Amino acid sequence: MTKFPAAIQKLIHEFNKLPGIGPKTSQRFVFYLLKQSPRRLQELLTALNDLPKNIKICEQCFAFAAQSPCDICRRPDRDQRLICVVAESYDVATLEGTGAVNGVYHVLNGLVDPLNQITPDILNINSLIVRITKARPPISEVIMALNQTAEGEMTELYLKKILRPLNVKITKLARGLPTGADLEYADELTLTNALKSRREF
Amino acid sequence: MTKFPAAIQKLIHEFNKLPGIGPKTSQRFVFYLLKQSPRRLQELLTALNDLPKNIKICEQCFAFAAQSPCDICRRPDRDQRLICVVAESYDVATLEGTGAVNGVYHVLNGLVDPLNQITPDILNINSLIVRITKARPPISEVIMALNQTAEGEMTELYLKKILRPLNVKITKLARGLPTGADLEYADELTLTNALKSRREF
Repeated sequence: MTKFPAAIQKLIHEFNKLPGIGPKTSQRFVFYLLKQSPRRLQELLTALNDLPKNIKICEQCFAFAAQSPCDICRRPDRDQRLICVVAESYDVATLEGTGAVNGVYHVLNGLVDPLNQITPDILNINSLIVRITKARPPISEVIMALNQTAEGEMTELYLKKILRPLNVKITKLARGLPTGADLEYADELTLTNALKSRREF
Repeated sequence: MTKFPAAIQKLIHEFNKLPGIGPKTSQRFVFYLLKQSPRRLQELLTALNDLPKNIKICEQCFAFAAQSPCDICRRPDRDQRLICVVAESYDVATLEGTGAVNGVYHVLNGLVDPLNQITPDILNINSLIVRITKARPPISEVIMALNQTAEGEMTELYLKKILRPLNVKITKLARGLPTGADLEYADELTLTNALKSRREF
């Protein structure tokens, strides 16, 4: 491997830890920054420095937010009886983009993934049980809005089992063809699920 | 576009400026960092903060370096009469990786690219002329190790014209088939150049 001055090597090493970033891209970042003005670099430094200072974890839904409880949990027009369970904090933003969720959220902070040592006990599942148990008025529905992957399915099954004694309605996202999809290019599993979940028209 | 708290939005905006990084990847970086320990975040901050403090531009070759003149320019075993001209500082590391350059470097800090307002006068070309003119013993060869692109060719042609009065030997990288290449998959231009530059065996 090529040798750079220590200060460059160190920052390459740090950027290299970012998800999806290899040593070449990391090197590109560093040399890009070296060519920027001191002011530009300072802006990045300030933004990075301010991040942990200004971001809290919402005590109710566990989303990253500017304050706790977060803006969504505080809003009086939200149906507090409808909890939408997501894996990550950024999933909240994605779902909010649809405008289709009128309730509040609960961030699990991951999905069950035993191969990577992510077991249910390290996820925000106990807090979900407590939240459902204590809710007055009672929770009307828990929507599981999770990735449609093996880890997502495992988490769905676990949640279903663990929430059953609480006697709450549990739903999950529909599986089918994505809007705009061409039958010809749909994979077999997607098509099978779309057939299984077909509905009267 | 989805709305995040201001501190998150600001850092997404900053990462978004990095080369090749779109808003989605930028968002991934921020949420990755939010999940890291304060120590981990501090390491990145320190590395970023130390970068401009510990990196100088070599007064002879214009490469980013820990000191000026840089390590390569200082080395007594390097042939100071052989100048290898490169576009960017990181190209030095790439060429050093080959071990095939026994001389010193000269970083242009870009390639001639009129469409993007990069004209020869903003590149380190005047300093190259001064360097060649003042060199004692005189420079024996200037190797142009530039990208084999339109911008690289334009720069080569400009350097050839501007350096001609200095009466110095100018060479450029060979064009041909990359080592390990399959004839079947070579593009026509590469193959044409490989034929034109064929050599006796």
